[in-house]
Amino acid sequence: MNEPDRFVDEVVEGIVLAYGDRLRTLEGDRRVILRQPPARKGKVGIVTGGGSGHLPVFLGYVGEGLLDGCAIGNVFASPSSQTMATMIEACDHGAGVLCLYGNYGGDNLNFDMACETVEMNDIKTTQVRMCDDVASAPKGSEAKRRGVAGMVFAFKLAGAAAERGDRLEAVTAVARKVTERVRTMGVALSPCIVPQVGKPTFSIKEDEIEIGMGIHGEPGIEVRTMMKADEIAALALGKILEDMPLAPGDEVSVMVNGLGATPLEELLIVYRAVHKALAAKGVASFMPHVGEFATSMEMAGLSISVLKLDAELKALLRAPGSTPFYSSANK
Amino acid sequence: MNEPDRFVDEVVEGIVLAYGDRLRTLEGDRRVILRQPPARKGKVGIVTGGGSGHLPVFLGYVGEGLLDGCAIGNVFASPSSQTMATMIEACDHGAGVLCLYGNYGGDNLNFDMACETVEMNDIKTTQVRMCDDVASAPKGSEAKRRGVAGMVFAFKLAGAAAERGDRLEAVTAVARKVTERVRTMGVALSPCIVPQVGKPTFSIKEDEIEIGMGIHGEPGIEVRTMMKADEIAALALGKILEDMPLAPGDEVSVMVNGLGATPLEELLIVYRAVHKALAAKGVASFMPHVGEFATSMEMAGLSISVLKLDAELKALLRAPGSTPFYSSANK
Repeated sequence: MNEPDRFVDEVVEGIVLAYGDRLRTLEGDRRVILRQPPARKGKVGIVTGGGSGHLPVFLGYVGEGLLDGCAIGNVFASPSSQTMATMIEACDHGAGVLCLYGNYGGDNLNFDMACETVEMNDIKTTQVRMCDDVASAPKGSEAKRRGVAGMVFAFKLAGAAAERGDRLEAVTAVARKVTERVRTMGVALSPCIVPQVGKPTFSIKEDEIEIGMGIHGEPGIEVRTMMKADEIAALALGKILEDMPLAPGDEVSVMVNGLGATPLEELLIVYRAVHKALAAKGVASFMPHVGEFATSMEMAGLSISVLKLDAELKALLRAPGSTPFYSSANK
Repeated sequence: MNEPDRFVDEVVEGIVLAYGDRLRTLEGDRRVILRQPPARKGKVGIVTGGGSGHLPVFLGYVGEGLLDGCAIGNVFASPSSQTMATMIEACDHGAGVLCLYGNYGGDNLNFDMACETVEMNDIKTTQVRMCDDVASAPKGSEAKRRGVAGMVFAFKLAGAAAERGDRLEAVTAVARKVTERVRTMGVALSPCIVPQVGKPTFSIKEDEIEIGMGIHGEPGIEVRTMMKADEIAALALGKILEDMPLAPGDEVSVMVNGLGATPLEELLIVYRAVHKALAAKGVASFMPHVGEFATSMEMAGLSISVLKLDAELKALLRAPGSTPFYSSANK
């Protein structure tokens, strides 16, 4: 990188130079990324926002069939409520706006304030906070859980619902349904470095693995000595299924998400183990997502997400959606 | 991972479980990946092959509008000529097969032998060896250069030529044209680990950067103290333009390729610098590729490739092409 203080602005500049035909920043606030050209009049708007350092999350999901806009914070820091409010206004096409984001204190507070602000201008909003990280709070306290890679499924499915013409209440219901049906567990082999801090956020020994850490370096629930890929898959899937039991005949979409420095080869090895473990329980895997979807700078590690499908969610997952960072065309 | 000796087989198993609707292994040789369903009769076949550890290169480019098949070696090792020959036969749709691969001793030898073998069965073949790495041999000795990330442009453009119905000679000519018009320079901040070796392939000090290393850990041309992103972009682009001068009015496609552990944010910062430097010379950037296209396990670093376009190459770059690992739909 260049100057740590310029990190986020230079990333945004790079994105606009590379993808200016499909994304633009808001006149007057370069921390807002908008779909270009804007969606048709009457489509429900969907926006998100959050800290930088997680690409493709968050701004990478702004595009046709997905999100209308994203408010961009500094690395691992919430964008301001003012930025969020400006974005929500820019993404209202006359049918209201769903704010769909990860459950973090700063983002919650700022989106609450932003929604209050825009409602004074007669823009109708709803909010859904994604909380898919099973390691971050026990069963029964789901509302305290962090939003991690499972958010991507919510962006895709709510985005498809808005694109097909659902009204605000229906789009919001799809996002809530995804929240109820997606679970994620992560493991890390190395920490990550925040540019402005310049040193690792936590430490992991060479031969150890951190289970259930957050995507901002929040400590996990336990530390284990290094495990094999199949053992990691079994452990993470076990925790997910404890929380959200599946029965023979169920269909799921699995995401094996690299956190930044894990080779795609290793993600595929883990997907293989998850696929086989699910198949052994009579659970079928549909449209898997294997790659980097929600990262944590250059953290080595991965997360496994399981989304329990039904006929509606399958159709929404399969529907066209395309951004410079995500394409349903090759899933 | 699990057992190092099972690494490649488990990756292939994961790929077939995840993407069995679009890719399959050859009956009797699981080290051959084929497009599924196969291309239409009469289409020129295009195949590649090489060592593992570089995903999405090589097998990630097998799919509609791109390659028909790939022979898979162990990590950083050539597949056998027998595997290549079986693959070439499986990818002949009656119009001959172009073998398009990186210029490495083992691969050259094995593809030569494989082509001899299949020609005894009346399958017509041509070969193009990609040699885009400017750091690996001086100007005038282009045929000695290694093939690195620029290979991806050759896969895409030759693939599109075959898909539109070009005959073997014409498809081969497109691949050669790409070879003549693409240059790549890489830099590494950390080495990578080959699973069966279990230790880094070379060493780089914390505050140093290796310029021009290969994607198998081949040493570079010089070691510098750590540089800023803009300096890295200027250095790499400078070496590329020294080798392949561009004039105002030229159009190029730029690839900023992560080698495995470099955050997407940093690749975008580097793209930004390359785009601006080219613009300052009056050179326009078309359909940039920013992300991981050719990796080296978990190496930290990146490469910059520049492809000099003309009207034909632009159309071929834009043409539809889709694999589980690459989509033209969102470029």
